[in-house]
Amino acid sequence: MIELNFTKSTDGLLPAIAQDATSGEVLMLAYINQESWEKTLETGKAHYWSRSRSKLWLKGESSGHVQLVKEILVDCDQDTVVFKVEQLGGAACHKGYASCFFRRMNGDELEVISEPVFDPAKVYG
Amino acid sequence: MIELNFTKSTDGLLPAIAQDATSGEVLMLAYINQESWEKTLETGKAHYWSRSRSKLWLKGESSGHVQLVKEILVDCDQDTVVFKVEQLGGAACHKGYASCFFRRMNGDELEVISEPVFDPAKVYG
Repeated sequence: MIELNFTKSTDGLLPAIAQDATSGEVLMLAYINQESWEKTLETGKAHYWSRSRSKLWLKGESSGHVQLVKEILVDCDQDTVVFKVEQLGGAACHKGYASCFFRRMNGDELEVISEPVFDPAKVYG
Repeated sequence: MIELNFTKSTDGLLPAIAQDATSGEVLMLAYINQESWEKTLETGKAHYWSRSRSKLWLKGESSGHVQLVKEILVDCDQDTVVFKVEQLGGAACHKGYASCFFRRMNGDELEVISEPVFDPAKVYG
């Protein structure tokens, strides 16, 4: 197994960038620890470490919006990865947008640049 | 100015993803603090916080490979940003590659998927 440099951070977490394998759109950034890295490799589905809930997080476990990992890129320092994914349900963001990066800076404003794909109230209940 | 959620991390650093504004290729991930965020907005050139040198880092200050920031995306939690950049010199990685993510996992191997753009020994002396 490819070893990542988890000792680079004090909390043992490294950033993982999820990028749409087809469009190249950056969908989200989340964190992985050794366990989520292994689970991702083992299952082919993106697993992260939820910092808010302090637990292993299969992306899509509540929403069904699982990320199928098509390709993994590793950076020069082996302390960041890119998961190239097929995003099931078409949306990575818990706010219902395809990407968590659905806002662009426009001077002192944040301008919404895409349409929501789902209604969070319906998906998360 | 747009306020980011720097209190989300214990060290006051947030990840910034540099993405090629034209090709969509993810070039690198580095960290920003409040000062580097302000400097980036003020100058239009990507500034990060160097964790190894513990100092403000104008990307390209040694190599000349400055990143001109064309667009900034902010995520749903306001704790990660994407800098869409024009990468001067054509290479973001100190190892001479266009992207720091120049290796792809292939089973238990890391396969180099691009050609270097410059020779690091010549650029960094």
